[in-house]
Amino acid sequence: MPTLSLHDPLFATYAIAACLMILKAVAMSWLTVVRMIQEKGGYRSPEDLRRTPINPDPRPEQLAPNDRVERIRRIQMNDLENLPFFLVAGLLFVLAAPPLWLARAMLYGYVVSRLLHFAAYLAARDHETRAAFWTLGSLMLVFMTAWALVAALAG
Amino acid sequence: MPTLSLHDPLFATYAIAACLMILKAVAMSWLTVVRMIQEKGGYRSPEDLRRTPINPDPRPEQLAPNDRVERIRRIQMNDLENLPFFLVAGLLFVLAAPPLWLARAMLYGYVVSRLLHFAAYLAARDHETRAAFWTLGSLMLVFMTAWALVAALAG
Amino acid sequence: MPTLSLHDPLFATYAIAACLMILKAVAMSWLTVVRMIQEKGGYRSPEDLRRTPINPDPRPEQLAPNDRVERIRRIQMNDLENLPFFLVAGLLFVLAAPPLWLARAMLYGYVVSRLLHFAAYLAARDHETRAAFWTLGSLMLVFMTAWALVAALAG
Repeated sequence: MPTLSLHDPLFATYAIAACLMILKAVAMSWLTVVRMIQEKGGYRSPEDLRRTPINPDPRPEQLAPNDRVERIRRIQMNDLENLPFFLVAGLLFVLAAPPLWLARAMLYGYVVSRLLHFAAYLAARDHETRAAFWTLGSLMLVFMTAWALVAALAG
Repeated sequence: MPTLSLHDPLFATYAIAACLMILKAVAMSWLTVVRMIQEKGGYRSPEDLRRTPINPDPRPEQLAPNDRVERIRRIQMNDLENLPFFLVAGLLFVLAAPPLWLARAMLYGYVVSRLLHFAAYLAARDHETRAAFWTLGSLMLVFMTAWALVAALAG
Repeated sequence: MPTLSLHDPLFATYAIAACLMILKAVAMSWLTVVRMIQEKGGYRSPEDLRRTPINPDPRPEQLAPNDRVERIRRIQMNDLENLPFFLVAGLLFVLAAPPLWLARAMLYGYVVSRLLHFAAYLAARDHETRAAFWTLGSLMLVFMTAWALVAALAG
């Protein structure tokens, strides 16, 4: 029977991939903060224009979309469309007891595909490059989900 | 004690519902891609206006919101506001060992409510229709979460 | 070995915190609905301007962004950027068998940080106040994820 023990290589593979993706997702929030501080703009709430120690000289333009901030927001949005589903699909996949090599290929492969997607998006590479990495990850996500679904239906 | 075995009918019910919802969520990304290709527009990043094999004749209007693409994005946003929470609430619900008939009614009922919400939104039916299906699913989500919370508090 | 039994104090701590955060996230959807009804606006889909029993006197301005509705949408977006990752990180954290007092401090501390973030955002308090609560929760999320990652790598 599958276990949720971190001493089980299969479950540990999932846990490592999941933790890396969670840290990646959280890093997008921090990167948005860093860029908002650098740009002194890209804010979203009216109250962010109040004079405070962090924003001593507020200007209305600070609420306008800022290219460098919006890029990180788009990357983060792409994460939100993908990572929460990976986090559950990956768990169900390892509970369906795939071979360890396959679990490693899929789970670590997914992590790599998302890091490459991030690098391509951050550097504003051509849409084709970014789309290729996204497609690779999305197909792996579908594969893991379909594997778990078939196993669950077989009972 | 509850198990996470796919041979356990209760957990298999959760796994099947979860996999279906994950595939549904991923399908929204692919549907967005399909519509962007059909419309040759609805893009979001400045670099998507570069001349590439997929976009041989770029025009600035390709970055403007496109109605057919935006509709899928709104549907996907609604998924992001609901499905990640269902995926965890459903797991905690089955771990609280509800009767199998109730788990099937809630988990499969939720899946059906979301598919009907999707159909109503895609076809631009009246707000009331879409809202009715959303409300049904949301109430089931609250019920499952409250059930798990009561069980966890009872210890 | 860690269990997923709600009778296990460690897992029950996670389950309680997770259920509270799920209910909080779902409440944002309902609060958006309440404010859209109060404002008779802040809608997003063209079909929402059809004459129906709920909207007997439609006007084009109903599709314009409404400040009171947009505030809740921003709060909800912040939830989507954080809570799905907390829900999985918290599970992996308790599976790594931390001391019970630490699990309670982190999991319940996270819940409190998010409720305070919500209160500060809803009341349009200064950015610094809102950011302080967000930062606190984000650091706890990183701590739990790093703890689980180290445990998984140690095997």
